[in-house]
Amino acid sequence: MAFDRSIVGVTDPVWTRSWTADDALLYALAVGAGQQDPVRELAFTVEGADQQVLPTFGIVLALFGGPQLGLRGVDLTQVLHAEQSLTLHRPLPVAGSAQVRRTVTDVFDKGTGALVVTDTEAVDPDGGEPLFRTRSSVFIRGEGGFGGDRGPAETFALPARSADAVSRFRTAPNQALLYRLTGDRNPLHADPAFAALGGFDRPILHGLATYGITCRLLVNEFCDGDARRMSHIEGRFTRPVLPGEELVVSAWRDGDAVLFRTTNGEGDVVLDRGRFRVTGG
Amino acid sequence: MAFDRSIVGVTDPVWTRSWTADDALLYALAVGAGQQDPVRELAFTVEGADQQVLPTFGIVLALFGGPQLGLRGVDLTQVLHAEQSLTLHRPLPVAGSAQVRRTVTDVFDKGTGALVVTDTEAVDPDGGEPLFRTRSSVFIRGEGGFGGDRGPAETFALPARSADAVSRFRTAPNQALLYRLTGDRNPLHADPAFAALGGFDRPILHGLATYGITCRLLVNEFCDGDARRMSHIEGRFTRPVLPGEELVVSAWRDGDAVLFRTTNGEGDVVLDRGRFRVTGG
Repeated sequence: MAFDRSIVGVTDPVWTRSWTADDALLYALAVGAGQQDPVRELAFTVEGADQQVLPTFGIVLALFGGPQLGLRGVDLTQVLHAEQSLTLHRPLPVAGSAQVRRTVTDVFDKGTGALVVTDTEAVDPDGGEPLFRTRSSVFIRGEGGFGGDRGPAETFALPARSADAVSRFRTAPNQALLYRLTGDRNPLHADPAFAALGGFDRPILHGLATYGITCRLLVNEFCDGDARRMSHIEGRFTRPVLPGEELVVSAWRDGDAVLFRTTNGEGDVVLDRGRFRVTGG
Repeated sequence: MAFDRSIVGVTDPVWTRSWTADDALLYALAVGAGQQDPVRELAFTVEGADQQVLPTFGIVLALFGGPQLGLRGVDLTQVLHAEQSLTLHRPLPVAGSAQVRRTVTDVFDKGTGALVVTDTEAVDPDGGEPLFRTRSSVFIRGEGGFGGDRGPAETFALPARSADAVSRFRTAPNQALLYRLTGDRNPLHADPAFAALGGFDRPILHGLATYGITCRLLVNEFCDGDARRMSHIEGRFTRPVLPGEELVVSAWRDGDAVLFRTTNGEGDVVLDRGRFRVTGG
């Protein structure tokens, strides 16, 4: 089947997404805040004057809870999150609203599948000041070979030296079941029969859970746990993670720029080509 | 200070408590559903036609989210949950509403503290059919010695034989941080400074989290994971549990009646005098 490239340029109706302080707490817990040390990350897990929002919560706000994209006709068992970036123009408020505009910006032909790229811009509904923007790519297996452009080849090289920092996190067996309450109810992450249709032995963890866990560990490592000091993160999902697996984040810092890579406990790369930017401090 | 016995007989204004299917999912995850085996307890962790509600969620509905009792003036650092029972007249709906009536039924003088007993009745707002009832006792340290009745002495004896079933669960270090999102925001369970005022080295797990975990394990063991087959649970909290500790539930069955006791990993009893009733099946 030739993939329908006409979705490029489609912009959803702008919508307003509101969230509460509790939504932000649930998100933080769903990406493991407090799971290693309940006291260290209290800014993310307990409401009050000191509460902060994990920046990757912005991706949830941008991608879930709004109108659905033109991907509705696609077989969900064949859709995998491929790449994700997030750029913050200011720290996310603990509770609030954002006006979100989402546009499909590209479709690439990767041979074994189609890669659909979507950009979102989130602005303050009062005044329109930019809050953050995201870029997401999803890979749709079996939808390639339609004669389209393969897309740009980007270079990415990690320093030859050992990582400057290595952080570890053991995901919980029910990590995906908790994470899905933040918005992404794709049954691939909960239903064994559905996961089998997608070719997986059991439900896999959301790529964005791995991503949020990784970001949290980087905030701890490079921003002293102060999420207001990060401005950008990006990375490419390269391999599914099963709930219960360990994640190992290796990072190399050069000034305000951090390169990172997340592997599972066996050393297989699950999140690659990672870039993280520290600001201020 | 003489404890004010005049709160006995005080009934809060009847209120209506509504809940969603997601509220029930969050509760189940907060008492560890899917934490040992993500597939086994999907009825509690995933929405849909097969969703079931863990019965102890009814206690959350009865105790939190309504108007506050006459305990407002009490020093919260000195309040501990002492006893809890729950009797179901029918299985809890996945989502719905309950009219809740709460009454302080007794205050006992335990010498080192006062024991305040509260009953709730929850009925269907349409038609008034009974849904469930609860009895809760809280122990207020330092408020005893006012010359009141000590209350009834109840006998409870476990069989001499080895337990018929032993279930184990390792609580997560952030178990209390997640559990508190279900309703009980007492800072004793999150704030190290507040916990220190109460004499604890660090924030302790909610007694009701231990209780819900215990109930879930008993439903798995004696009701084949079908929560509709339990009708009653009760027990007495005897010792604080720290997040991260293991819980061990030992149970003895005699027909439809199950006696149980929950200990920590060191064998100290944390939930005692447990009774659980299986129905139907």
